[in-house]
Amino acid sequence: MEKYQQLKERMAEIMDVTMAAALLNWDQQTQMPPAGAEARAQQLGTLSKIAHQMHVADETGRLIEAAAADLDGADYDSDEAAFVRVARRDYEQATRLPPEFVAEFSRVTALAHEVWAKARAENRFEDFRPSLEKIFDLARQAAEYLGYTDHIYDALLDQYEPGMKTAHVRAIFDELKKDLVPLVHAISERLDAVDDVCLHQEFDEDKQRDFTYEVIQKFGYDFNRGRVDRTVHPFATNFSINDVRITTRYDRTFLNPALFGTLHETGHALYELGVDPALERTPLANGSSLGVHESQSRLWENLVGRSRGFWKHFYPKLQQVFPTPLGGVSLDTFYGAINKVQPSLIRVEADEVTYNLHIMLRFELEQEILEGKVKIAELPEIWKARMQEYLGVTPPTDALGVLQDVHWSSGLIGYFATYALGNLMSVQLWDKALADAPDIPSQIERGEFDALREWLRQNVHRHGRKYMPDELMRRVTGEGIQSRSYMRYLKRKYGEIYGL
Amino acid sequence: MEKYQQLKERMAEIMDVTMAAALLNWDQQTQMPPAGAEARAQQLGTLSKIAHQMHVADETGRLIEAAAADLDGADYDSDEAAFVRVARRDYEQATRLPPEFVAEFSRVTALAHEVWAKARAENRFEDFRPSLEKIFDLARQAAEYLGYTDHIYDALLDQYEPGMKTAHVRAIFDELKKDLVPLVHAISERLDAVDDVCLHQEFDEDKQRDFTYEVIQKFGYDFNRGRVDRTVHPFATNFSINDVRITTRYDRTFLNPALFGTLHETGHALYELGVDPALERTPLANGSSLGVHESQSRLWENLVGRSRGFWKHFYPKLQQVFPTPLGGVSLDTFYGAINKVQPSLIRVEADEVTYNLHIMLRFELEQEILEGKVKIAELPEIWKARMQEYLGVTPPTDALGVLQDVHWSSGLIGYFATYALGNLMSVQLWDKALADAPDIPSQIERGEFDALREWLRQNVHRHGRKYMPDELMRRVTGEGIQSRSYMRYLKRKYGEIYGL
Repeated sequence: MEKYQQLKERMAEIMDVTMAAALLNWDQQTQMPPAGAEARAQQLGTLSKIAHQMHVADETGRLIEAAAADLDGADYDSDEAAFVRVARRDYEQATRLPPEFVAEFSRVTALAHEVWAKARAENRFEDFRPSLEKIFDLARQAAEYLGYTDHIYDALLDQYEPGMKTAHVRAIFDELKKDLVPLVHAISERLDAVDDVCLHQEFDEDKQRDFTYEVIQKFGYDFNRGRVDRTVHPFATNFSINDVRITTRYDRTFLNPALFGTLHETGHALYELGVDPALERTPLANGSSLGVHESQSRLWENLVGRSRGFWKHFYPKLQQVFPTPLGGVSLDTFYGAINKVQPSLIRVEADEVTYNLHIMLRFELEQEILEGKVKIAELPEIWKARMQEYLGVTPPTDALGVLQDVHWSSGLIGYFATYALGNLMSVQLWDKALADAPDIPSQIERGEFDALREWLRQNVHRHGRKYMPDELMRRVTGEGIQSRSYMRYLKRKYGEIYGL
Repeated sequence: MEKYQQLKERMAEIMDVTMAAALLNWDQQTQMPPAGAEARAQQLGTLSKIAHQMHVADETGRLIEAAAADLDGADYDSDEAAFVRVARRDYEQATRLPPEFVAEFSRVTALAHEVWAKARAENRFEDFRPSLEKIFDLARQAAEYLGYTDHIYDALLDQYEPGMKTAHVRAIFDELKKDLVPLVHAISERLDAVDDVCLHQEFDEDKQRDFTYEVIQKFGYDFNRGRVDRTVHPFATNFSINDVRITTRYDRTFLNPALFGTLHETGHALYELGVDPALERTPLANGSSLGVHESQSRLWENLVGRSRGFWKHFYPKLQQVFPTPLGGVSLDTFYGAINKVQPSLIRVEADEVTYNLHIMLRFELEQEILEGKVKIAELPEIWKARMQEYLGVTPPTDALGVLQDVHWSSGLIGYFATYALGNLMSVQLWDKALADAPDIPSQIERGEFDALREWLRQNVHRHGRKYMPDELMRRVTGEGIQSRSYMRYLKRKYGEIYGL
């Protein structure tokens, strides 16, 4: 076990540097005085260079193989076997990309990000087009370096959703789309059945904060192991299993951003907080994938936070906090409002029903570009046409269309699918949790969340990165990722709300 | 210049890691949730190990010598020559201590710190004695590794006050003590001439904060390049020339901690903020020494913040902020109160007059221990006797005596002298600033500080670590560090206040 211990210490030091970089990034977003940005960029560059060099060093590879030999025959589920399995996968991925390519990729995306921000602000897609072409070229090269057998997109998808294949995701999404588009159309004919004017009122920020903090502490978020700050774009981050921080934003005239945004980030945080402490300072101390991570944020935000049972307990409290404007608003009206469906242009503002269609659009376009079926120059028009087809709305500008998301400018090709996969998995896990612990709904109606959180911790959180997403779903629910459960959930919930 | 550029890039990366560690430390003191401490200690350990390894690597030494050859004949005052001079000095110091010794020193002091904190809380010097003996042994070993010609203490002092010799400091302190002890005795007979009851009243914390922020912004502290947080023990720290943060603490029933503490830390911060931007990411981007740093904090805290001219402008404003309890308190009474002299037991609470005697006590004892003239076991009794001799007070307990300071438990032997040297330099610089810019006092009476701050920036701040402390003083004031100016300042100011 000596080599295993050496490998563990080496990976622990790499984790230390990575976590330090994460803290520098958190500080930049939440605390740093503006003039500190230039030096901070240098510091972050140096830390990631050091972590990368330590990671791809030949010595790391030798230790991994020696540790694997040490552990030959170890139980697949053991921490040790999982550690070496994940360390090897990470090492292979990291060493496949030549250092010059990594540097070029960083350089191009750093510049492209600036270009994109300006192009979006000025609604000038043409200004961004050359950068985007370059980025898709680099993504193609990255895929070739990383390697694939079936589809070039597999290599990119695998970076964010390990083990998932394009054909598999496509089959899931096709199935989903078949049922989802008709549902969206049916609801679209009854949009007036729900109005959400009660959410667009004046809500004191401090009161929003106090109420939200009370809820997330009941969820199990522990301020001894985390904290909440304000940022323009909310996120969750962690520097150890015992230091998991989230951020949120407040809108004085709209309840949703702070409330549901915080529940969402808390879902991410509970995942990291629930990882087995024995995995601290190992590459296993993280979520299985972006999709599984999203399943946790969506579960707490939507399955819990937008459920009738949850608000049976919390709505009277919210009314006490905001007698104006909510005193005279019934629970039914409020419940409808927070679940209002509205086909719209912007992904991040989309409701539960239409959200996945935004994702499918991007998932399909990325592949069509990589396959050469769609040219970057044609994107704006195709985007508009496809939005009309899926959602029945046409973006009046590219800023509200193809330019809306930050991902492509940052080189994140293959990423979007994880959002929709997360939505699907959230319902699969929810169904299984309720089957195993039927008391969960009645606990939630009493404002208690221990049974749900502990079930998730036991079945998902504690494993960290031990299992790949589809593997994890099979272990926990008995089947892989599918869309059936999600559609059943949507139809039942929205059928009732919209009287379908 | 190629080797010089390579050296510069290498040192810049070392600085990046060091600054990252400083941020992790700041976060731990100001933001981190309590449970994050264990992982944070690991992360800090890894970052300092990496920075140390990069620093002491043979490659660093080779680059320094090659860069020095590149620059042969460069102007002593140039950034380049100063860079290589300081890099070489740092490298030589760092490489003289064997890695095993550095590790042992860290281990012993980390444990000793815990032991000391407990021993102080329980007033049990005997519990701390073995740790302190071990630490002085290690300090002796460190001095032997670092090397010295005249006195073993030179090697330790040089770590904090580069270039200063023990004999030199001793001569300065002897001169100072000769005049200071009689002054303290003279004031001690008239202690009732001043009372500070007006400072020990109820002061709303938010109002303390707003008033203090207004003052430091007028000093020139720029919230675009820094921020203020709360900690139990205030400090200043920086992560770049454009990100210099301070901390403070508030006492609801005593005005001094927040007010003068913040002015003090702002003095440190203005030094770092005033370093020439061309020195960013080099080892020159820091203060010349701890003593020169303290001269800046003391200058803004005492020469400015405890002066009559300053309060001529600000006292009416402070009275507006706190009509109760200050509305009926005259400027004279207030000015006396903030300058009240009181021989006392605790160094950090000491006034301007008695403070340096606390330092001399420690400076002398450290040498006597290293010379074998005083045994650790005898320290408590010698401390009490010496306090009676210098200050006319005898600590009733060791917690209020030899156990009061954190420094020794952290292995900081040779450090205390820098506080007193800082006091002396503050007045030397102040006198020279007023000679060069006679408008300074009248500006201060108008609440303006540009002339003073710019003089300091021009003469002290912008140079960073280019010059050693005594060298800097000779360049700026025409003579080395001396006690004459400080004593003249004390006699004039306190002669007036106490009617001597």
